[in-house]
Amino acid sequence: MSHSAKLSLREIFGDRFSDETGLLFVYSYDAKFERTPDAVVFPVNSDDVSRLLSLATEEGFPVVPRGAGTGQTGGSVPVEGGVVLSLERMNHILELDCENLTLTVEPGAITGDIKSYVARFGLYYPPDPASYAFSTIGGNIAENAGGIHAVKYGVTADYLLGLEVVLPTGEVISFADKLYKNVTGYDLRDIFVGSEGTLGVITRAVLKLIPAPEAYATALVGFPDLSSIRRLASTIRSISASACELIGKNIVPVLMREFQLPLPPETRYLILIEFDGFGDEPRRLLDLMLSSFSGVSFFVARDEAERERLWDIRRNISPIIRANCACGVSEDIVVPPASVPEMLQFLENLPDEFPVKIFSFGHAGDGNLHVNICYDELFPERELEQLLEALFRKTVSLGGALSGEHGVGIAKKRFLNIYLSEESIRLQRKLKRILDPRGILNPGKIFDE
Amino acid sequence: MSHSAKLSLREIFGDRFSDETGLLFVYSYDAKFERTPDAVVFPVNSDDVSRLLSLATEEGFPVVPRGAGTGQTGGSVPVEGGVVLSLERMNHILELDCENLTLTVEPGAITGDIKSYVARFGLYYPPDPASYAFSTIGGNIAENAGGIHAVKYGVTADYLLGLEVVLPTGEVISFADKLYKNVTGYDLRDIFVGSEGTLGVITRAVLKLIPAPEAYATALVGFPDLSSIRRLASTIRSISASACELIGKNIVPVLMREFQLPLPPETRYLILIEFDGFGDEPRRLLDLMLSSFSGVSFFVARDEAERERLWDIRRNISPIIRANCACGVSEDIVVPPASVPEMLQFLENLPDEFPVKIFSFGHAGDGNLHVNICYDELFPERELEQLLEALFRKTVSLGGALSGEHGVGIAKKRFLNIYLSEESIRLQRKLKRILDPRGILNPGKIFDE
Repeated sequence: MSHSAKLSLREIFGDRFSDETGLLFVYSYDAKFERTPDAVVFPVNSDDVSRLLSLATEEGFPVVPRGAGTGQTGGSVPVEGGVVLSLERMNHILELDCENLTLTVEPGAITGDIKSYVARFGLYYPPDPASYAFSTIGGNIAENAGGIHAVKYGVTADYLLGLEVVLPTGEVISFADKLYKNVTGYDLRDIFVGSEGTLGVITRAVLKLIPAPEAYATALVGFPDLSSIRRLASTIRSISASACELIGKNIVPVLMREFQLPLPPETRYLILIEFDGFGDEPRRLLDLMLSSFSGVSFFVARDEAERERLWDIRRNISPIIRANCACGVSEDIVVPPASVPEMLQFLENLPDEFPVKIFSFGHAGDGNLHVNICYDELFPERELEQLLEALFRKTVSLGGALSGEHGVGIAKKRFLNIYLSEESIRLQRKLKRILDPRGILNPGKIFDE
Repeated sequence: MSHSAKLSLREIFGDRFSDETGLLFVYSYDAKFERTPDAVVFPVNSDDVSRLLSLATEEGFPVVPRGAGTGQTGGSVPVEGGVVLSLERMNHILELDCENLTLTVEPGAITGDIKSYVARFGLYYPPDPASYAFSTIGGNIAENAGGIHAVKYGVTADYLLGLEVVLPTGEVISFADKLYKNVTGYDLRDIFVGSEGTLGVITRAVLKLIPAPEAYATALVGFPDLSSIRRLASTIRSISASACELIGKNIVPVLMREFQLPLPPETRYLILIEFDGFGDEPRRLLDLMLSSFSGVSFFVARDEAERERLWDIRRNISPIIRANCACGVSEDIVVPPASVPEMLQFLENLPDEFPVKIFSFGHAGDGNLHVNICYDELFPERELEQLLEALFRKTVSLGGALSGEHGVGIAKKRFLNIYLSEESIRLQRKLKRILDPRGILNPGKIFDE
């Protein structure tokens, strides 16, 4: 970054500009990757963002938008240096519209704050990525975040009505605010959803809210083998479970021990399943679901305390993996839901070929698995690359894709051509180029330009 | 169209090519517009479509994709001549996947056939545009069709998982087939949804299915004035009605008379409201809804026959308008749901300024109103244009858009800049140009290039 560019930024942002080393460190990393920026700025409105991006397009320095930095794939990391655009001061909840059931927010608003704010009015914003207590709504939109309840309620894109975006060239564009239907020109809004901050900077969003469910029925089900979970996907989707969390082989014995779960010792897989709704309906659906299984053991939460205990089990997965996996990578593949058993089988066979231990869990109802591959620190990088390529090729051969909810970022871009055709990548590059002719916005992510 | 281009087409398509005048007439119109093409071809697979489009891009003749021609805005009409690409022979239901709850179809499959096919398996494909008994799924995707149940279930886009598209330059692109989540590169799939056949030709779609509801509760509610329906939108969305059809002033007296409805004579608006689900739930929700109104009259269907009778009333709206409106135009505006009363008030005031009669009805729960403007055949076109401009300006001032489910086509393109900013139109044109460099696919629709 040139000295003059920094001077211009200081002029625009005043004390909302910084290039102090200590502060830059804070804006250098996400959950997995790290690179120190040259400067950080703290815009307070879309005009600030527009002036920054205009200058960046003029001068040619990279700008990397950043929410809370909870991403897993490097999306908010300034891998080519330049300016981190922190949206933390644009964090206001602007308007709850109880007539149209919408919430207008700035991009830096915390997802968890949004959820609890609307809950006070009996309303529900369903998306709940694991990091929702910290992650920002702008980041969720940029990564099209999912979460535990996506199996019934869908992902962030499904709750986005309006969007204001600043293009890399500085123009501000707004998309329909509170409309539940709209066929007036091309759907450009959805291009920005899941584009990982590479096509525009989100400066305002209008979210769709729904009535909050009032009753839950929750059960933990133990399965002895893969064949017994084969029909799970279709059952889950036909009976509309609101959560269907699968816990794989290596994690189950630890959970059985730590939580003293009253399940048969031959239990190999756990599924935490929940139904939500009103009155007795969730319990009726859960019973219908449980009656469709044969040869499985389960227990049903009898009250809210027991339900919380079951969710505690789910919440303990990541700590258990961290404790048992000093060195490893985590992937976020997605397959058609019915292919989950075949994918699990493949994962369980991986240690026959590579010296690794696999911990898998995830959102079985929508086919999105989080695969943790653990290895000794001496495991050669070349072999790890072979393993990952084999994993992604298998995923794609089952009709799957590289990421269900974490995005490509820098973590998976070298594998992108396993999933996307050359034609498709060419088209994506063209789209990037018309929106960002100088390639200044979050460069080096998803694909190389 | 050049003679040599026709010869090439005849070579590719054999007897699936025609330029006979009688046949061309059949492919010249939709529900509102008309223009005879130079030729029509009947592809049977994506390879056919690809060869046609490659040739068109080479030779520079227009190609206009056509489903059943039930559109309302000229989307399938060859306004600049050229070839109509009829998808009627690509009409197969290819695969029902009961494990992943998906249906793979060719674009010419009839929406109604799809709905009844999956119903046999206890499954539900919700989108139901008024023409669903004839319209094709490809056309529904191209226009992002809605329908009566969109208020609860959403529009066509919400049920689209996979898509195969032939680009104007002939390349075939596929988007994730049976994935319920996917953040692997930009979301290019949704660009094609609602793009009115101008960006690519849909040659295959994978639809998401859901479990079919088993019980219904239906009521017809009469309202004496606009203030009594003011809180309707929020109530409808908070209690999740599956249909909320509003019938406006001039239609109500005819229906009251013809169906001898037992409602007070001062009834000015009717709302047909339905809840669906399982067991007693729909009836519980309907009662909750009805109890939230005050000063209204209603009757509730006691059995399936009475429910059908209520829906008959709704089905009679269009015949009544046709019978009472020899000359007129029909618009398809959409506003935030809570603005429906204000929009109705505006519409009712229009006859004070223009010699017209207004018949309004539509999907009140999602703010999508069908406005029929009837006039004497001597009504000057200049004044009609003034009226339409006033209508669209009011719509946009309420946060609305020009079309909720019919698209822009040629019908509304001269008003597009009332809704879309210059910047936004410029971006749409750029997108069109990278996909269709010679502008051969459905030219003259949405905007002029």
